[in-house]
Amino acid sequence: MELTGQSILGGRRSGGAGKGFQAFNPQTGEAIAPVYHSAVAAEVDEAVELASEAFASSSQLSGKARAAFLRRAADGFDAHREALAQRAHLETALPMPRLLGEVGRTSGQLRLFAGVVEEGSWVQARIDPALPDRQPLPRPDIRSMLRPLGPVAVFGASNFPLAFSVAGGDTASALAAGCPVVVKAHPAHPGTSELAGQILAEAVAAEGLHPGVFSLLFDAGIDVGAALVRHPLIRAVAFTGSLRAGRALMDLAAARPDPIPCFTEMSSGNPVFVLPGALRKGPAGLAATLFGSFTLGAGQFCTKPGIVLVPEAPEGQAFFDELKALVEKAAPFTLLTEGIAREYGRATETRAAEIPVAAQALAEAGPACMAGARLFAVCLEEFLAKPALADEIFGPNTLLVHCNSTQDFVRAAAALDGHLTATILGDEDDLVANRKLIQVLAEKAGRLIFNGMPTGVEVTHAIVHGGPYPATSDPRFTSVGSMAIYRFARPVCFQGFPEEMLPPELQDGNPLGIRRLRNGNIEAI
Amino acid sequence: MELTGQSILGGRRSGGAGKGFQAFNPQTGEAIAPVYHSAVAAEVDEAVELASEAFASSSQLSGKARAAFLRRAADGFDAHREALAQRAHLETALPMPRLLGEVGRTSGQLRLFAGVVEEGSWVQARIDPALPDRQPLPRPDIRSMLRPLGPVAVFGASNFPLAFSVAGGDTASALAAGCPVVVKAHPAHPGTSELAGQILAEAVAAEGLHPGVFSLLFDAGIDVGAALVRHPLIRAVAFTGSLRAGRALMDLAAARPDPIPCFTEMSSGNPVFVLPGALRKGPAGLAATLFGSFTLGAGQFCTKPGIVLVPEAPEGQAFFDELKALVEKAAPFTLLTEGIAREYGRATETRAAEIPVAAQALAEAGPACMAGARLFAVCLEEFLAKPALADEIFGPNTLLVHCNSTQDFVRAAAALDGHLTATILGDEDDLVANRKLIQVLAEKAGRLIFNGMPTGVEVTHAIVHGGPYPATSDPRFTSVGSMAIYRFARPVCFQGFPEEMLPPELQDGNPLGIRRLRNGNIEAI
Repeated sequence: MELTGQSILGGRRSGGAGKGFQAFNPQTGEAIAPVYHSAVAAEVDEAVELASEAFASSSQLSGKARAAFLRRAADGFDAHREALAQRAHLETALPMPRLLGEVGRTSGQLRLFAGVVEEGSWVQARIDPALPDRQPLPRPDIRSMLRPLGPVAVFGASNFPLAFSVAGGDTASALAAGCPVVVKAHPAHPGTSELAGQILAEAVAAEGLHPGVFSLLFDAGIDVGAALVRHPLIRAVAFTGSLRAGRALMDLAAARPDPIPCFTEMSSGNPVFVLPGALRKGPAGLAATLFGSFTLGAGQFCTKPGIVLVPEAPEGQAFFDELKALVEKAAPFTLLTEGIAREYGRATETRAAEIPVAAQALAEAGPACMAGARLFAVCLEEFLAKPALADEIFGPNTLLVHCNSTQDFVRAAAALDGHLTATILGDEDDLVANRKLIQVLAEKAGRLIFNGMPTGVEVTHAIVHGGPYPATSDPRFTSVGSMAIYRFARPVCFQGFPEEMLPPELQDGNPLGIRRLRNGNIEAI
Repeated sequence: MELTGQSILGGRRSGGAGKGFQAFNPQTGEAIAPVYHSAVAAEVDEAVELASEAFASSSQLSGKARAAFLRRAADGFDAHREALAQRAHLETALPMPRLLGEVGRTSGQLRLFAGVVEEGSWVQARIDPALPDRQPLPRPDIRSMLRPLGPVAVFGASNFPLAFSVAGGDTASALAAGCPVVVKAHPAHPGTSELAGQILAEAVAAEGLHPGVFSLLFDAGIDVGAALVRHPLIRAVAFTGSLRAGRALMDLAAARPDPIPCFTEMSSGNPVFVLPGALRKGPAGLAATLFGSFTLGAGQFCTKPGIVLVPEAPEGQAFFDELKALVEKAAPFTLLTEGIAREYGRATETRAAEIPVAAQALAEAGPACMAGARLFAVCLEEFLAKPALADEIFGPNTLLVHCNSTQDFVRAAAALDGHLTATILGDEDDLVANRKLIQVLAEKAGRLIFNGMPTGVEVTHAIVHGGPYPATSDPRFTSVGSMAIYRFARPVCFQGFPEEMLPPELQDGNPLGIRRLRNGNIEAI
């Protein structure tokens, strides 16, 4: 596959008029060819108009046809595994094994959604048959199912150049729902984005779908994204990124003449509560696991444990010492972009001016994207008094919060904002003794983890990657796992329609053999 | 039951400090005792703080316990059927049979949700068991289910003083989900609201629930509502009313430091497409049915057919003449409030200055709430050129849009904004000939109706009372029917938790016997 530097507008290449920009190799600081061109307003309009045109047919495609398209795209990712990972490695400095794994995650997600829409029950078909003899008035026949929302704007994320970018979970779930997608590529990995876009566009063409089903727009700045969210024909938005950018998109979506659903996954401290049993099991192992988690991907995971609460305990000092030692001897990390590295420096310096730095890796001269691990430490009272300490700092750092005892944990938990995850480490006796903590955390996070690390999000049917603000814009949805499709669908009800005019999902004979509710009860298949 | 004019703060009566106001009898213009007192800021805070306190226990109640509470409340409504309807009749001038029916609808809704939460499957439990042997890494055990959002602010609607007011569908679904509710009563029917609030508060007490589970606040103005939506402890909002007020609440919710879900059901023209078969069946009957629908409840239904598209047809003139005759001889209607009557006058005069009034009832001198039926008529081109003609005018009026042929219908449908309903009248041949129209309407409305009137919304499992903006704030939800509960719940995922620490809904043995998905497939019960 050849890189052109051009946007993809419904299968057609376009670009050259907009401002040029390039990717940079975070390891060397060198620009990477080719030059990309920011899309101009007319290109945004064309992409969205094509998407709107495509919706007329994409919304009517059978689940089987959508599955075939998603599987073809997945095959394309697997076929170009090496090329994708290599380009992503150049653009992000993330290690090759991780990136090869991420290609698999990307094709896996596409296949997961293919399975969901092929099986078909996800539409939540409900049938309340007519009651012609009901008094005082007959009840009409009422049936409903989920239908796609319309064209969706997806924003590529910096930290998952494949699995949450052009053909990542947002795109896969929106396409699966039957929504055309216009992606705004993240400017930090335009080459990876173009490769992914090409694979998707080829799958669209090969399956004979309307080319407007997928478009990819480049932009070094924020104009294209803002124009997408404001565009009258865009019906929903999906974004993964910073709180600042995510909130800006939320505000734009809410300020439209017709506000639209805008799912943004933004910021999470992913608190970890260390209970005595976990310390007893071995402070050194615990420190190593935690260090591995908060520096995984150079600390650039949405689920990085950024707040670790530890009670006074005999093993507490050993745990703390071990963690400090790991941080101090840590080799420097290469962050995704100079901008992220700059922000990491600024935010950690600000925090260091407020509270003690317990440990930090030796600074090294190096390219602008290099950053050292940092460990902050604070007591609970100070943590509670300074809410900004709970703010996420993207990069390889975490904050230890020293508590007097686990009695403080409920108070600490109650003071938290929304998070993607909350983790409890300990033994089963600890859990029994901390039921209230579990209850409070269930109000604060989308996923509670016992004796695991929050990094590493399984892509399954039960997973929730969501949570109350500021973790996301809407705690009722997830952006990972098969439930992510529900962000892009709405129920439509058919009242009094004759059998043959109903979608197959709602016909009496249940030709698709899907799970349905009849008068609220599951129907025998 | 005695009326006190006081707010109910978690079971306690409170009030007297705030500004006084009274209900008015729309038929006579006379004030109705007692005097009500607008809640002050401290009362709003107390109600919400009690709700937040109550959430700790209400969120943990079993489905059975919540069902018992909802059924007790339902019994209370049935027991006070006459008193409720009589007071509502005084305050709204809606006819007694309708109001007696509305009490039944209110208790019926409470029982519908009782059944849903008692059965328990609504929580959408999903289980993806651990895969300890998976390579390269084992998969942890992952389980998720829906949990309540937290305290919900509900706004009573003017046009359904019982079924969409203090203990209406919003309150019933929020309580069913496990959310405490703080209601802001509609000032047009405070007595009905207090009666309903008393019944709910008594049910809370009788079931031994935390009194903060339910509070009721009065206010003649907008301060209490705004304070509720802005309150940091409120987690969601439900509202039925005007576009102006609903949008204002949406904007308040979106502007919070932590935006929260805000479901507003606002404005809908409920277009009706008359196909040739419907005219052939009998223009006079069609005119009578339509007239009955757009003047039902004095035209104050959310689902009033406010736009009627009719093609040129031999029977078209007869239909038009009959409809005009019905409007001209219609007796005056009593609207809910002087404010609504004033707005009806203003809006119909504005429209009359723009386009022809095809027919209007003879004006009569009478109390300020009286209003005459009006029929507007316009050709399609003018309708398309003047988007304001699609705006809802609350009250007994509708707009006929003359089209050249059904060929124009798709163009008309494509130009529509979001609506709660869209109706097609005709025979089955008409449907076959108008598949594209059905497809376009399914993108515009939450409910498509064939050969029925949009007024009259069944409360069932499959019903959708929702739709794209401006019909509602979020097309992914419904405010009527059992699916309304999903507005107030969010998925929470438990990863790696031992069996005995999981909620019963997620335990392996499935002690509640609910429908669950295991690895995405329905589990055998």
